Amino acid sequence: MRIILDIMGGDNPPEEFVKGAVLAKSRYRTNMTLVGNERVIRETLKKLSVPEKWFEIVHADDYVTMEDDPMSITGIHSDSSMAKALKMIADGHGDAVVSAGNTGALFTGATLICRRIKGVRRAALAMIMPYKNPTLLLDCGANVTVTPEYLVQFAYLGSVYMEHVMGVPSPRVALLNNGTETHKGTELVKEAYRMLSEADAINFVGNIEGKDAMFGACDVIVTDGFTGNVLLKTCEGMSRFVVEKLHEKIFGGVRGKLSEMLKRRDVDRFSKMFDAKEYGGAPFLGISKPVIKAHGSSDKVAVCAAVGQAIKCVDMGVVEQISARSDKIAKYNPIRRIKVDKPENEQ
Amino acid sequence: MRIILDIMGGDNPPEEFVKGAVLAKSRYRTNMTLVGNERVIRETLKKLSVPEKWFEIVHADDYVTMEDDPMSITGIHSDSSMAKALKMIADGHGDAVVSAGNTGALFTGATLICRRIKGVRRAALAMIMPYKNPTLLLDCGANVTVTPEYLVQFAYLGSVYMEHVMGVPSPRVALLNNGTETHKGTELVKEAYRMLSEADAINFVGNIEGKDAMFGACDVIVTDGFTGNVLLKTCEGMSRFVVEKLHEKIFGGVRGKLSEMLKRRDVDRFSKMFDAKEYGGAPFLGISKPVIKAHGSSDKVAVCAAVGQAIKCVDMGVVEQISARSDKIAKYNPIRRIKVDKPENEQ
Repeated sequence: MRIILDIMGGDNPPEEFVKGAVLAKSRYRTNMTLVGNERVIRETLKKLSVPEKWFEIVHADDYVTMEDDPMSITGIHSDSSMAKALKMIADGHGDAVVSAGNTGALFTGATLICRRIKGVRRAALAMIMPYKNPTLLLDCGANVTVTPEYLVQFAYLGSVYMEHVMGVPSPRVALLNNGTETHKGTELVKEAYRMLSEADAINFVGNIEGKDAMFGACDVIVTDGFTGNVLLKTCEGMSRFVVEKLHEKIFGGVRGKLSEMLKRRDVDRFSKMFDAKEYGGAPFLGISKPVIKAHGSSDKVAVCAAVGQAIKCVDMGVVEQISARSDKIAKYNPIRRIKVDKPENEQ
Repeated sequence: MRIILDIMGGDNPPEEFVKGAVLAKSRYRTNMTLVGNERVIRETLKKLSVPEKWFEIVHADDYVTMEDDPMSITGIHSDSSMAKALKMIADGHGDAVVSAGNTGALFTGATLICRRIKGVRRAALAMIMPYKNPTLLLDCGANVTVTPEYLVQFAYLGSVYMEHVMGVPSPRVALLNNGTETHKGTELVKEAYRMLSEADAINFVGNIEGKDAMFGACDVIVTDGFTGNVLLKTCEGMSRFVVEKLHEKIFGGVRGKLSEMLKRRDVDRFSKMFDAKEYGGAPFLGISKPVIKAHGSSDKVAVCAAVGQAIKCVDMGVVEQISARSDKIAKYNPIRRIKVDKPENEQ
């Protein structure tokens, strides 16, 4: 197995990614290719006293910045580290890509360079949420607009991931909605509800609200990328906000002296639980090769975790498992019926 | 001033609402009308040793349940307590309505019986979020689909409320989005961004993400009712989830003995801060009379808080202030241009 790591384009300098690669190499002992500025890679390895032969090194001068247009990965940035990494797995050299760069460009590149699995209309960015039980949220932002069919496809993609990577038998799939009743939501969501209820081999448990999402009622939450992104980031913000408020209210109050005996560090560590960079990585599900998006602000620990996740995706055959269901998935094709939400009473 | 209280249709029995009314009467000394089952009202007042003359009592046999279709308020439930309450303020008997009943029915009834303020295309359910600074979120669920124009109208409605009821000069308005960059979001959200940037007398501060919403960067958050509802409920769920996790991790651990000295009650109270029923009430902004939605599970304290909020809306002239801006608001009319989001690449 070979994991291809794009060391460029994250918020941290490439050196941090090389350090992450060294961590991952020590831990997982897998073959790894580092793609990016060759000089930086060699110098960092030297500084760490790590032999160069630990890694295959592929030089790339160019990289995609966070501000670049996603489509630039097939245009002016077609020789970037990200594009080179994706081309390598598309050509069969390597088994998975990890990148902390521009999410949109990685999504576009994965779709156009690696292609989707047959029958899959849209790949989704999926994230494990550290809820009461680990819960897969998809889409987290790759597709801001969806059709009901995409949501059903996401349900298949997420179910396979939870079953085969996370070991959850018959994962419970819920649809994010503004109420639990079947008549709730936009026309799009209502149609998705009907389709999910009838979908073959999906353990659909109905609608879920934001207030219940974290309490273990399901294993997979499907939603459009806009709402999913709001849910994800609200969880991140609230975990920080609640802990800060508690510090103020309890640890800063008259019982301050006492509470010093409680390690404040524990509380701070907790508030990071929902910080996206602690998750490791998020897979783009539906692409014909494992492509893992590491958080933009990944440090070496997060890079190492993302590599670990890439290895798990390859080991567990996520792509093969999804391909095995492509007949079921392909049945949900919006080309045949495009439904868009119109505001009621406005004709 | 006279506040009309619908005592029926909440999760709690009507007796609880009568108790809430007694609390509110003691606190605010305003005229109040109770609408609902006359026998229950008289018996509860007797039990509380409160003279009947404290309240005007209007009998209604029927009420709207949580399961009823919203439109039923003008149909089979047109003699319900909620419909009667709305008709009273529409007819000029009373200044504001408070109800904890079916949100959809209250929205429909407010719109069809009390009517919207001239120029307002859609009323919005607005909620004060107990963030770093009190932040008004609208829409919270009344309009699951919107147009860019509605979002601009919501910005006007929210600005007036924050300025005149909450005393915030030149309220900062942000647009909920899946990123802060101007190119982020659905086509609908991008168009709303452009319109808000150019809108007269709106202090637009740009996009806001779920992770930043609670940290005081704005005073008003505008979004569609679907996403707003997810944001609202995720905040509620997360505040409970984080506190429960902290209990487990810190208060339940080896430092358990020590932590008993910290009052657990304080933490529990905190977790309720985001519990929707603690907010008091949420106004429907854009209706020609103040209509306050109390949370479905309101107890007597929440009922009293909602009455207090209704009084504030009347005192501060929210309706009049919105009416004074109706020329600006009326400029944003989606009839002239309906834009709907289509998934990209699917033609």
